[in-house]
Amino acid sequence: MDTFIQKIAKAAGAAVMQKFGKVGVKYMKSDALWDCVTEADLISDRIMVSAIKKQYPTHGIISEESGSYNHDADYVWIIDPIDGTFNFSTGVPQFGVMICLAYRGDIILSAIDIPATGEFFFAKKGKGTFMNGKRIRCSSTKRLHNSFGVGSSSIRARTSKFLLKLVQASKAEDIQFGSMASMAVNACYAACGRRDWMVALTGALHDFAPVYLILKEAGCKVTDMKGNPWKFGQLEMVAANPALHKQLLKLTKDV
Amino acid sequence: MDTFIQKIAKAAGAAVMQKFGKVGVKYMKSDALWDCVTEADLISDRIMVSAIKKQYPTHGIISEESGSYNHDADYVWIIDPIDGTFNFSTGVPQFGVMICLAYRGDIILSAIDIPATGEFFFAKKGKGTFMNGKRIRCSSTKRLHNSFGVGSSSIRARTSKFLLKLVQASKAEDIQFGSMASMAVNACYAACGRRDWMVALTGALHDFAPVYLILKEAGCKVTDMKGNPWKFGQLEMVAANPALHKQLLKLTKDV
Repeated sequence: MDTFIQKIAKAAGAAVMQKFGKVGVKYMKSDALWDCVTEADLISDRIMVSAIKKQYPTHGIISEESGSYNHDADYVWIIDPIDGTFNFSTGVPQFGVMICLAYRGDIILSAIDIPATGEFFFAKKGKGTFMNGKRIRCSSTKRLHNSFGVGSSSIRARTSKFLLKLVQASKAEDIQFGSMASMAVNACYAACGRRDWMVALTGALHDFAPVYLILKEAGCKVTDMKGNPWKFGQLEMVAANPALHKQLLKLTKDV
Repeated sequence: MDTFIQKIAKAAGAAVMQKFGKVGVKYMKSDALWDCVTEADLISDRIMVSAIKKQYPTHGIISEESGSYNHDADYVWIIDPIDGTFNFSTGVPQFGVMICLAYRGDIILSAIDIPATGEFFFAKKGKGTFMNGKRIRCSSTKRLHNSFGVGSSSIRARTSKFLLKLVQASKAEDIQFGSMASMAVNACYAACGRRDWMVALTGALHDFAPVYLILKEAGCKVTDMKGNPWKFGQLEMVAANPALHKQLLKLTKDV
């Protein structure tokens, strides 16, 4: 299954890439600006879903695009056919194809393809996270001061609470915070040390599940806002090396 | 001079690109994480500065890297050899080479090369802003609700004040805010409508001067926090289409 997940994520990424800068937004969901869904989203979904159904007909699938299928099976694939669709649809290269595999709620494999920058991330439980085949580690920065974090760009209820905490903390020490407007890219950048930490509070299962193992196996402590180990289904995440994570938790525990 | 500025910006961008992902950080200035200066920074600076000195020996130059030269001349070139050096040094494609030309404090030409994504921005006073030769316009989004803004990632004094205002405003309406961690990229994305507005409060002259005309000629109203037309030397900027700008000003006027 290691090879399979990488193969279909790359195939979907390649298909998505062929449409980059070429397609318009096909139709809109509730939130016209943010939640735009492109033709490429549907193509990416189809590639991965049909491959899984063919290869593993008894497995379950939960996809952003095509919904849920046999989702109480032991093995369930979680798919985000394009994460960062707003970037995708406006020509910004930070978007990714995400897929992971859970066995009884425990995520054991994860793959994220960022085709526009030619970067492929893969994680296997207990074996590490790899970027284009090379083992990666999260940032070793030990202090929040001067650290650079990523997270949600949407300023909604809990994200704004976190931002307020962050602003408060930055009075004592300069902190950088910015969103690449894609959970996939935010997480991969935190996993390989381009950014130092991630605090995410907006998104659905297909956003959170695939990034979990990528971060975890890169050396991040990955928890909910209170510091409990992140659990399948939770829609919040704090990820950083243990030293930074401890400091972040002071900001997130009441959020 | 139209051709000259584009030629040297592209040459510097190409030289920078050759070092992307290959060089380490050569030495550090005050702020180890953020203000890293790479070999490429020096190469880019040298290409543009030597070309100007040769072609226009009486002109002044203000450069992030090599300082100021004959800066009270009528014509002064302002140079940021690599904007977004942290991205550059960590393998993130959002960084740019910026240069503009001021005549008696009035910016008349500006060029920004974003070599990793192959995007070149050029603006000429009264003639418009162009991306890879094609005229661009800023976002036409009329409401802050659901708009996506860019700005400083550093949470310092005035930026945090603005963030607090933004959080307050977002209680009534969802707003997106994220930084690409490069003034060049933030501004170019706002100029071509990939993002809707920019509010920037950190940076030096070489950060602000080159982005001004790119935004202005793309249809943005470009002012200080109070709404006065942006002036050469000011280290703050609000840029958006007039309808959005009016709403942003409510958040920035007391910052």
